Amino acid sequence: MPEAQLALARPIIHHRTPQFTDLFLETRNNLQKILQTQNDVVILASSGTGAMEAAVSNLLSTDEQALAVVTGKFGERWLEICKAHKITCTALHKSAGEACSPEEICQALENHSETRVLLIQACETSTATSHDLELIAQSVHQKFPAVLIVVDAISALLTQPLKADDWGLDIVISGSQKSLGLPPGLAFMSISPSALERIKNNEASSYYFNLSIEVDKQRKGQTAYTPAISLIDALNETTQAILRQDLQKVLAEVELMAHCTREALLALNFRLLSSSPSSAVTAAFPPEGVSAKELIKKLDSKFGVMIAGGQSELKGKIIRIAHLGHLDLIDVFAVISSIELCLLMMGTKTEVGLGLKTALLEAAKTTNLSE
Amino acid sequence: MPEAQLALARPIIHHRTPQFTDLFLETRNNLQKILQTQNDVVILASSGTGAMEAAVSNLLSTDEQALAVVTGKFGERWLEICKAHKITCTALHKSAGEACSPEEICQALENHSETRVLLIQACETSTATSHDLELIAQSVHQKFPAVLIVVDAISALLTQPLKADDWGLDIVISGSQKSLGLPPGLAFMSISPSALERIKNNEASSYYFNLSIEVDKQRKGQTAYTPAISLIDALNETTQAILRQDLQKVLAEVELMAHCTREALLALNFRLLSSSPSSAVTAAFPPEGVSAKELIKKLDSKFGVMIAGGQSELKGKIIRIAHLGHLDLIDVFAVISSIELCLLMMGTKTEVGLGLKTALLEAAKTTNLSE
Repeated sequence: MPEAQLALARPIIHHRTPQFTDLFLETRNNLQKILQTQNDVVILASSGTGAMEAAVSNLLSTDEQALAVVTGKFGERWLEICKAHKITCTALHKSAGEACSPEEICQALENHSETRVLLIQACETSTATSHDLELIAQSVHQKFPAVLIVVDAISALLTQPLKADDWGLDIVISGSQKSLGLPPGLAFMSISPSALERIKNNEASSYYFNLSIEVDKQRKGQTAYTPAISLIDALNETTQAILRQDLQKVLAEVELMAHCTREALLALNFRLLSSSPSSAVTAAFPPEGVSAKELIKKLDSKFGVMIAGGQSELKGKIIRIAHLGHLDLIDVFAVISSIELCLLMMGTKTEVGLGLKTALLEAAKTTNLSE
Repeated sequence: MPEAQLALARPIIHHRTPQFTDLFLETRNNLQKILQTQNDVVILASSGTGAMEAAVSNLLSTDEQALAVVTGKFGERWLEICKAHKITCTALHKSAGEACSPEEICQALENHSETRVLLIQACETSTATSHDLELIAQSVHQKFPAVLIVVDAISALLTQPLKADDWGLDIVISGSQKSLGLPPGLAFMSISPSALERIKNNEASSYYFNLSIEVDKQRKGQTAYTPAISLIDALNETTQAILRQDLQKVLAEVELMAHCTREALLALNFRLLSSSPSSAVTAAFPPEGVSAKELIKKLDSKFGVMIAGGQSELKGKIIRIAHLGHLDLIDVFAVISSIELCLLMMGTKTEVGLGLKTALLEAAKTTNLSE
């Protein structure tokens, strides 16, 4: 977004000034609206992983237990963070592409009755798999009212509904570089009163990530340590621009992009990885005989179209197409067209144009475009 | 610097690309030259405090001991970081404005023979006090060869000599927002082979700040977590521009600025806080009867000249004038002129122009300008 890019290039204002405080409080307020919450929002100068560590190291002590839903690489990260802080964390593993149901989570909480915090991804980016957080939060709160729910929504923000207050999500984490389309370097998180109470009564095992201090400072428009000023300036521009739109419509657009992409890929004999596909990103196995690696390389070298591959054990096996950031339906048509042409060049026998036609027909079905 | 500002506004390149790897390795190499080291350099998406925590939480375990030189607010931060990580840290306190001598440090290490790491500021920004790290490192290495030296050079970088390799400084920490004049959001640190060995044999008590993983990744031009891409792009531009100059001359210029400022303030009946004044920043008590707070406020409101006040127990008592970032001798004349005018408006009886005259005469003495 040009406004955000220009904000990044602006001369830096000093952070111990009323001018910065105004900017900060405005940005914080915008984030509250986007996260649909009245809760405190804390902005950190770090990547999203820093905010994940902040949540874990501030909510839990070494003698306390957590349960992590692990459906891919970012789920694994909860375990690694808990390990670094010597916190006991039980893993509820699912195969790549599978989401965890509310029943499975409640069963695990039943089995591990000492659990104080549930750690989960709204969207597991590595497998393009989305969790139904509304249902999960409902079940967990009903049966285990003392368990706090911490959600990594780094890639999920603005790609699936996320109602921190309505659903009772205690901590919701995201960052600057996904749907907000900004350079990386900022993470932010909402913190419910119950989570804050736990944080205040716990001794944080991080120093740079001390949420108790940050909450107090940030309410007054200051930060504990030097903030990433230019990124906050740009975040203010971007969040303002988003809030000028209807959030429901923003969501519907990305959902449509994901839907059209999935249908097009299926028509081209790809197989979806996820049984609970996210709208942030689509992951799929290429048709029989097509190398994912070669396809990704060709898309970049021939058309300048950048899509991702698999991570960890999915490396070389799948393609991943993002739908977040500054993308729209035209980009879906562009990526599907390029894939069709690559498949043709790679000698597959798919009917030419079938993917694109499918995407167009799916798009035409929605009321979004007829308004 | 316009080149860096434009870099910040550039479209973001993806970090898992050869293009980013090239940019990253070039920037890393520039930082090695600026830190005068062949050691590994690690860049983190955080403020400088994050890098301080990284050093402590990666070098030390809970059963190990550190010694921190505490001469002000940033020295205190070592103690707070150690406390968060349950590391025993002895404080070697000095009064505000006093530096610690090599003898005092060696005596403390003698008294605390279990000490594994010495934590120290090159420049304690809160008191504008500089440590003679060459002498300190020499004495410590001679008598306590197993003790590692960790230097917070956040404000000291490019304002006082810092020879990581020649002096054997195991970790040297700095950030983007001081002498480099960039927006905050990046910290970086050099890591000696001895420090790296310790890090490799220790279990880090941080997750986001895991130096063992970062060193391995960053040697190959990648980072463990999403890097602050646009800031790294700008850091590359800035470090390139600095390396086109003679580093000795860059240092001499800032030393001259600090010297002229000190002499001018003394002529105007200010009293310097520090007996070992830094070139990064000058701290002084105003003349009898002049309120530091009022002076700072007037400088800003009447002349748009921003200087800092004291922190913690020095709040309201001193003024602090920075010499780093995009400043030169002309800025010294500007700030001294403005101070003179403010003093006049505040009814003090100092001879008008004496500060400025002193600054000019001191500047004229140097060979810097006659070349």
